Amino acid sequence: MKTIALVTFDQFTDLDLFLMWDILGRNQQDWSVRILATSATITSAHGLKIDVHGPVSEANTADAVLFSSGKQGIPAALQNPEFLPSLKLDSRKQYIGSICAGAFILERLGLLAQSQATTHPEAQAALHARGVEVVERALVCRERVATAGGCLAAMYLVGWLVESLFGVTKRQETLLPVLPAGQQEHYEQLISKSIQQARGLL
Amino acid sequence: MKTIALVTFDQFTDLDLFLMWDILGRNQQDWSVRILATSATITSAHGLKIDVHGPVSEANTADAVLFSSGKQGIPAALQNPEFLPSLKLDSRKQYIGSICAGAFILERLGLLAQSQATTHPEAQAALHARGVEVVERALVCRERVATAGGCLAAMYLVGWLVESLFGVTKRQETLLPVLPAGQQEHYEQLISKSIQQARGLL
Repeated sequence: MKTIALVTFDQFTDLDLFLMWDILGRNQQDWSVRILATSATITSAHGLKIDVHGPVSEANTADAVLFSSGKQGIPAALQNPEFLPSLKLDSRKQYIGSICAGAFILERLGLLAQSQATTHPEAQAALHARGVEVVERALVCRERVATAGGCLAAMYLVGWLVESLFGVTKRQETLLPVLPAGQQEHYEQLISKSIQQARGLL
Repeated sequence: MKTIALVTFDQFTDLDLFLMWDILGRNQQDWSVRILATSATITSAHGLKIDVHGPVSEANTADAVLFSSGKQGIPAALQNPEFLPSLKLDSRKQYIGSICAGAFILERLGLLAQSQATTHPEAQAALHARGVEVVERALVCRERVATAGGCLAAMYLVGWLVESLFGVTKRQETLLPVLPAGQQEHYEQLISKSIQQARGLL
């Protein structure tokens, strides 16, 4: 069974974390998913308090690590003296991804060097200022590292991860239950196209 | 300022509630949004425990009431002796909507009589068995009552509500920040078309 870590922090963007959490949490056979933070309880950007499942350092041994976002949460996490030093990730062995401002963590971990990346449209200029080549795309990936931008693009990030670990059929099975009724084919095409574009196949 | 109640219960579907919560929670000028349940703390289908903001009866005085979903959560809520009796809604004055299995609550409240409705694809047969004319659509509305089906259709439900209360421009402003980067126009068309179809305008 694969292990997936969702790394988060105080003032996380509610939708970005919970979208990944819900879609991935529906499968309990192929992988387990855990929410990690530097404190046992964290509060979302909109004020929901949740208990997390373990410390950030648990991400170091996970098969995949996805970073959530937060306009205030990300700068605070990057300044938290415990946060970045807890992370010893290896992009040769682990799949690593981010949604929206989570890209700033990947950048600080040196995972976006000489690579294109994406983030939330409102954060593009700031990521570019860190020396990253930012592109106006919902999903960008390079080998085992992916960035996604715009909250709902979290579904593409999750799709990319499941497809990378288990193939296209499992990715389709995983996302189907959350697609709008009567529009499943349309969304399947949109998801497939976004992932293939990110892989440079389109 | 308008008041929006998100009514939920134990074993709620994480994504459905949090998608409405996050999108609506970004605006603190035009409306306030509160999560309501029969107990002060509830646990999601995937095991997240959250504190709610008030009792279900608060929905009776809200301008809009949106019901969340849950495969196990809905049957349990309908059997909870406190749940349905707390609700005295008025669809002549209040906007009332549901995502996925939330439609079963609207049905029990008599809000789907002689009306089409939608729900999660896996729950369509059961809703039909309750005498409702179920259609394979992401969003269905009739006057001030709307049903949405398939978790991500929660964005159409929220869109319908904001457009009903404040017009198209506010609806666009509200949804824009969560749309995938580089695909905003595509999603705007999809959202606009889904709402117009639900209103019988397409």
